[in-house]
Amino acid sequence: MEKFLDLIKEDETVDDLGLGGLFLLQKKTGFRFGTDAVLLAHFAALKNRESVMDLCTGSGIIPILLAGKSTAKVIAGVELQAKYAEMAGRSVLVNELSDRVTIHQGDVKDLAFLDGLGHFDVVTCNPPYKEVGTGMLNPMDERMIARHEITIDLKAVIKGAALLLGNQGRLCLVHRPERLFEIVNLMRANHLEPKRIRLVAPSTGKVPNMLLVEGIKFAKPYLKWEPQLEIYHPDGSYTNEIKEIYNDGRH
Amino acid sequence: MEKFLDLIKEDETVDDLGLGGLFLLQKKTGFRFGTDAVLLAHFAALKNRESVMDLCTGSGIIPILLAGKSTAKVIAGVELQAKYAEMAGRSVLVNELSDRVTIHQGDVKDLAFLDGLGHFDVVTCNPPYKEVGTGMLNPMDERMIARHEITIDLKAVIKGAALLLGNQGRLCLVHRPERLFEIVNLMRANHLEPKRIRLVAPSTGKVPNMLLVEGIKFAKPYLKWEPQLEIYHPDGSYTNEIKEIYNDGRH
Repeated sequence: MEKFLDLIKEDETVDDLGLGGLFLLQKKTGFRFGTDAVLLAHFAALKNRESVMDLCTGSGIIPILLAGKSTAKVIAGVELQAKYAEMAGRSVLVNELSDRVTIHQGDVKDLAFLDGLGHFDVVTCNPPYKEVGTGMLNPMDERMIARHEITIDLKAVIKGAALLLGNQGRLCLVHRPERLFEIVNLMRANHLEPKRIRLVAPSTGKVPNMLLVEGIKFAKPYLKWEPQLEIYHPDGSYTNEIKEIYNDGRH
Repeated sequence: MEKFLDLIKEDETVDDLGLGGLFLLQKKTGFRFGTDAVLLAHFAALKNRESVMDLCTGSGIIPILLAGKSTAKVIAGVELQAKYAEMAGRSVLVNELSDRVTIHQGDVKDLAFLDGLGHFDVVTCNPPYKEVGTGMLNPMDERMIARHEITIDLKAVIKGAALLLGNQGRLCLVHRPERLFEIVNLMRANHLEPKRIRLVAPSTGKVPNMLLVEGIKFAKPYLKWEPQLEIYHPDGSYTNEIKEIYNDGRH
């Protein structure tokens, strides 16, 4: 790590991802990654031969997790906010992943830009969850952009993902369960068939508060449900599955 | 019970529903009610002032459970197969519920017939789950009709339900989780907005194998997820919630 200290700015932290010595730079006071990013990287179940693009990548947490969890050679991310794209690029350097991970700064709504990035086997996205006009607006712009559909909404994310995917390509998305049907309709409008769903609940008996969903391009309809993922045991300790996901090495 | 013994045929059993002394006649070798019917009656959460119609009622299990769980005064059921409709009628007599529960023999696809039954606040339905051409065909015709979409399919059930419901009327359906999107599309095509979902899994960590869904006529879209319902503890004993549902008295 020491040799990379000059890559880290004063307003940033360096967080050990607990994954084979991988680290992530994050803004001390900006949007910081959460369980949703970790669960999405797990849900994507990236195969080593697959190429992957992460949309709305922020700090680059998902590309870096995917690099740690697979030996995939083509891992990319797109981030709109230059400050975050630049920091994500430095996280790639710190982890010496430049041969496998590329971060692009650009707008997912700009289809000509996206088209220039090529095709991918898998697209992941942990987009802003909140519709504009709902919830509290965060006074810090960059966190507001990460949480609310200000610069990008579901429709644009799914349209962009579909453009990047070839036949049988997979879009893996994490979002709020209450928006499932909107996601399904947008996927289908873009020739992505929702094939796999996993709900995440804080613990057994609690309302699910996270949705993981996979759509496959040009696939035939058949929906497979996975077991609900629970974060905590009733006593407040982490479930074994969550522990395994957080300590997941290469596989 | 003794005074009703002449209402019971030789090929039938009389089963105590464990619900304030209610009983149900069932064919010894025909289709027998399952957990899905009990969970649907619970999910419907019938209010005492509401009227309810159960489509594809079979032995009448759902109307009789709803009579036991509420003081609702207008409870009806429709069954296509005359043998089952007639038996359900005798279950109503055995339970002395004739003033509250009415069983009709008829075809849910016959919209003129349905229209003649009036409007209801709630429609429930535990329809055949299996698409024709999937799964094993049951060699006993009547059970095959109960399990496969031979005489009725989802499209006809939801269309019929929508006809029976007024503004803000509720359709509560139990089905297979893999058919969720088909249900949602059919509901929306019939002005029923899916508003409430509950998945049922055998136990924590298992794939959900039952779906409870409520659509409300002319409602605005907003989907509410309920906590997953689990049948068994990991040790194989029933969960407290299942015990409560099965022992539920009037409320």
